Amino acid sequence: MAEVTFEIVKHIKILSESKKGWKKELNLVSWNNNEPKYDIREWSQDHTKMSKGITITPEELKILKDILNEIEIKL
Amino acid sequence: MAEVTFEIVKHIKILSESKKGWKKELNLVSWNNNEPKYDIREWSQDHTKMSKGITITPEELKILKDILNEIEIKL
Repeated sequence: MAEVTFEIVKHIKILSESKKGWKKELNLVSWNNNEPKYDIREWSQDHTKMSKGITITPEELKILKDILNEIEIKL
Repeated sequence: MAEVTFEIVKHIKILSESKKGWKKELNLVSWNNNEPKYDIREWSQDHTKMSKGITITPEELKILKDILNEIEIKL
């Protein structure tokens, strides 16, 4: 499997922290030295390990923001 | 590998559609007959295939909503 390189260009927000200390975060991440993308996934404390997650474009993030402002998020 | 069952309980929003017709969606999904969770991932047109994605709790979604209202999303 090809090696994936990444750089967390900007830590934007921690969404939660698990008992094991992993954090679900919204960041700007550059994958394989490409243009940084918004990214939501979980990271180990030293940010060397990561879970499955998603990259999300600015356009998608805008639509997500708008819908989150419309719906009632039941806590 | 254990078989994963899922049910899209509620389609909330399509965030984007790829050239291949796959859609990135925010949905409420019940995995293995568990309590439905908010979920962001890509789906094939007939929703039988899916990409890697994330489940996200209401608390996380609230924090995400708040930060998206704070930051400037550069399109």
